[in-house]
Amino acid sequence: MHFTSERRLDDGVLEREFTLGEIPGILWTPEAASASTPVPLILMGHPGGLARMRPRLTTRARHSAKDGFAAAAIELPGSGDRPRSTGAEQARADLQAAVRAGGPVDDEIVDRLVLPLVDKAVPEWQATLDALLALPEIGGPVGFSGGVISIGVRLAVVEPRIAAAALFAGSFVPRSIIEEARQVTIPLHVLLQWDDEGNDRQAALDLFDAFGSKEKMLNANMGGHTGVPHYAGDAAAQFFTRHLK
Amino acid sequence: MHFTSERRLDDGVLEREFTLGEIPGILWTPEAASASTPVPLILMGHPGGLARMRPRLTTRARHSAKDGFAAAAIELPGSGDRPRSTGAEQARADLQAAVRAGGPVDDEIVDRLVLPLVDKAVPEWQATLDALLALPEIGGPVGFSGGVISIGVRLAVVEPRIAAAALFAGSFVPRSIIEEARQVTIPLHVLLQWDDEGNDRQAALDLFDAFGSKEKMLNANMGGHTGVPHYAGDAAAQFFTRHLK
Repeated sequence: MHFTSERRLDDGVLEREFTLGEIPGILWTPEAASASTPVPLILMGHPGGLARMRPRLTTRARHSAKDGFAAAAIELPGSGDRPRSTGAEQARADLQAAVRAGGPVDDEIVDRLVLPLVDKAVPEWQATLDALLALPEIGGPVGFSGGVISIGVRLAVVEPRIAAAALFAGSFVPRSIIEEARQVTIPLHVLLQWDDEGNDRQAALDLFDAFGSKEKMLNANMGGHTGVPHYAGDAAAQFFTRHLK
Repeated sequence: MHFTSERRLDDGVLEREFTLGEIPGILWTPEAASASTPVPLILMGHPGGLARMRPRLTTRARHSAKDGFAAAAIELPGSGDRPRSTGAEQARADLQAAVRAGGPVDDEIVDRLVLPLVDKAVPEWQATLDALLALPEIGGPVGFSGGVISIGVRLAVVEPRIAAAALFAGSFVPRSIIEEARQVTIPLHVLLQWDDEGNDRQAALDLFDAFGSKEKMLNANMGGHTGVPHYAGDAAAQFFTRHLK
């Protein structure tokens, strides 16, 4: 992991860009984080396109810093400046065509779009976690927050260092991921935008039902895909404070 | 409205039993409530059986008092010491038999159980509201909290003094109430116990979907019918503080 830039925001948060091999990422740490007082870490998932998502990620990271957490985001495979995958581009076009046609989206298209992404992204998140936890100012426990929700599910299954997850049900979910969800046992907070038309609400409800966790909360709100109300963000923050502090 | 008893709890809350005609009720007011500083009011719904529910209602009322709200509960028609309705008793027996048989419960049984209860209970809540708002130490705005959810829906439709409602989706819901829900426009916080087997989860989701409110949140948790986690109670309290203060 190489830090390529560093700046101090006006609230004292230290913002550092880094690369891990070919993967660009950003790390935000609260002012008080140090080797003698390491802070817990939240991995921030997003739909891809780190530059485009940066304002929203920065806002989330600053909120997390106020609660005493470091936060990090990396670019997804095939997004931003990373090499495109022909298969993923074709699958995305097929999905968009199916949504435009107003019909249900074939499971086969969702599988082609999401499963290769999960297979690539999860080991990248794990390598990032190795590097971040090696920093003296970052301790555990670790949370995962956001989407792509299928990446969050797989991470929760395979990565024992993830202690709690606030998942954003804002993307299509393969049926096989719903099956994997039965193995998840960590505390979960699932955000669903009820009127998110670019999403499959029933799949999100099936996924929530499938999770094996004894503690799981579904928090559904109005406001469309990007309109998560501020009090829903506050509830997710309270969830992490309960579980990571 | 006649007060029949009065005692001061150790946290300063004033607890008064009352009768309104044949209807028994309880009113809890925070220590600071007075004619010069009247407090908002939360009507606390429950499944019936005021004596049996009293410990849980008292706990809820004391939490509300801490947030600066008065809280009140009345006995439901046909519950506690109030005269039974033969029709409701028969409908309840039919519903229990259908649940025991493991099959879906006929809409006709749910209608027979719930609709006459809603028709009787809602005007009683409105008369109670008239009496409570006439007390100098109680001002507005007014919230409704709890169940029977169908009573909460009808109240939210017909009673303009109710400004916000935290509804507990813990009972069977007639299809016609789901239709009525389209007319509800006040902010809503809907609690659903996801693994509540004595309930119809799909009807609860259909009801949530039907509400016409621009602000509505579904908060689903594990823990069975009576196992609402403390943080879900906290979230409902935050909802009322946002809307009634």
